[in-house]
Amino acid sequence: MKKHIYIYSPSSAVRDKASFKRGVKRLQALGHEVEIDEAALATHQRFAGDDETRLAAIHRAAASGADVALISRGGYGLSRILPGINYKAVAKAIGKGTEFVGLSDFTAFQLALLAKTGAVSWAGPALGEDFGTEAAPDDIMEACFDDLITGQGEGCGWQLPKSATNSVAGSAATAGATAKFNIKDAVLWGGNLAMLSSLVGTPYLPAIKGGILFIEDVGEHPFRLERMLTQLLHAGVLAQQKAVIFGQFSNYKLVPHDKGFKLPTVVAWLQGQIKARVLTGLPFGHVPTKVLLPIGQKVTLAVEDRDAFLLWSHQH
Amino acid sequence: MKKHIYIYSPSSAVRDKASFKRGVKRLQALGHEVEIDEAALATHQRFAGDDETRLAAIHRAAASGADVALISRGGYGLSRILPGINYKAVAKAIGKGTEFVGLSDFTAFQLALLAKTGAVSWAGPALGEDFGTEAAPDDIMEACFDDLITGQGEGCGWQLPKSATNSVAGSAATAGATAKFNIKDAVLWGGNLAMLSSLVGTPYLPAIKGGILFIEDVGEHPFRLERMLTQLLHAGVLAQQKAVIFGQFSNYKLVPHDKGFKLPTVVAWLQGQIKARVLTGLPFGHVPTKVLLPIGQKVTLAVEDRDAFLLWSHQH
Repeated sequence: MKKHIYIYSPSSAVRDKASFKRGVKRLQALGHEVEIDEAALATHQRFAGDDETRLAAIHRAAASGADVALISRGGYGLSRILPGINYKAVAKAIGKGTEFVGLSDFTAFQLALLAKTGAVSWAGPALGEDFGTEAAPDDIMEACFDDLITGQGEGCGWQLPKSATNSVAGSAATAGATAKFNIKDAVLWGGNLAMLSSLVGTPYLPAIKGGILFIEDVGEHPFRLERMLTQLLHAGVLAQQKAVIFGQFSNYKLVPHDKGFKLPTVVAWLQGQIKARVLTGLPFGHVPTKVLLPIGQKVTLAVEDRDAFLLWSHQH
Repeated sequence: MKKHIYIYSPSSAVRDKASFKRGVKRLQALGHEVEIDEAALATHQRFAGDDETRLAAIHRAAASGADVALISRGGYGLSRILPGINYKAVAKAIGKGTEFVGLSDFTAFQLALLAKTGAVSWAGPALGEDFGTEAAPDDIMEACFDDLITGQGEGCGWQLPKSATNSVAGSAATAGATAKFNIKDAVLWGGNLAMLSSLVGTPYLPAIKGGILFIEDVGEHPFRLERMLTQLLHAGVLAQQKAVIFGQFSNYKLVPHDKGFKLPTVVAWLQGQIKARVLTGLPFGHVPTKVLLPIGQKVTLAVEDRDAFLLWSHQH
């Protein structure tokens, strides 16, 4: 099914132009019409153009009438332009059928949009790193992207890693008990943990109660991840969630003086701090195999033994 | 003047025991009685003992009756134990003459203490890195520490680096105009920027209006520093300050694709965002030459040309 895909750059400058071009060609080869924003390859310092340029690109994406507005890449740059974004215009575009897709730095945009308008956007791929890979793009990512653009998507499933936290999740669970539970009609939200924690205390953090929070990050040591989670914890954000789901945390280095302090330590510590279910292994993050997740949409989380599902009805 | 100095470890485990020992000997050689907390060299994972151990160490320091409670080192570990600290006991100890001194991770303790009780503590050295150096400790640091323990300190001065921001600081300033201004009776606060921003939105960030905020950090790229400042900006913290003073930002690496984005870029950007005076060059941070600064005390900031002074009366 031929779709209109709009490519734009709201964050860091595109440095890997070969990946950018490959990504465009791959989407074209799938039969799509790819429209490239006039500033998609702009550069200003480390940014894809100065603040006004990137804001204009976002607003052109909203005005494009495309089926999908896809970021070229993440990086850094959205935080400082959050006050300048016309969120109503973006929400209006989404209401008319344009799906905003991206991750990483884009989390700031997605959560601010949710806070300001309640509009749903998609945590998902970026053009270069996901469609522009030298090898073929990841099958699961492509299938989920296809689900989105054809309106067929109804959720995603994954296998929970074996861990104490996953098997005895929840304060009421008994050690060794088989986990089986559903959480219904809970707002799914989250994304990159560093971006999420950087919004705490600002008008750009949505106030989600009874939600399902998913998180991922790249290049952050577990002690930094724990500090970010501590901010969410002490700000009262985590106490209001029904579940916290760890996605993929990649590309960090443990050091000898960690002496056993590692990511599972942080996960177990967190489970001791909150009543919400804490799950791991969600295939989303700075890794090739990633599902697409509707930020701001009500979903059902269903878990039985080591099988977990996030289910939603495609509402757009 | 012989003083009683209590050494304890509220954050990361002491790894460099040679520096620890040298630091103790240096303080003893200055004539002081050095008391070492029973858990000062404890280890649990990357921490100086588990959470209960480190909390007990803080409370022993408060009960020690020492003239100075000095951290062995920073690192990481205070964030997660903030809810367990008996702030009233610490404030009571300070009221009886115990000065709490430290930096880096310790910023979380200092700001939480200020938020909960209004008690003043000192941004200053750590035992190992400042007194336990292989070479002689820094003269200025030692002189400022001596000022503190003898009750002689009345402030500190430094020379503002030549920069557009320093010379035309403040929204009312004219380009090229000679800077001369005083800010009186403003609460001095701040410390490590990563720790400060990690407290935004939590009960541990003091609500300081009309204050003078000083910041420093180590190993953080300017884009990360800008993201932290953006959080403070969007949370409304910076709009309430009369001045923001950059201390030392050390040990970060610029990369080719920064393309001119560097720390002065961030400073200039910040000055464009707020009306407060933005100054740089304060000798405080993860560097040998550091002054001691009373967090939570009313001070006067006096600037004339390139000379800046922070002045206070020693109240304890």
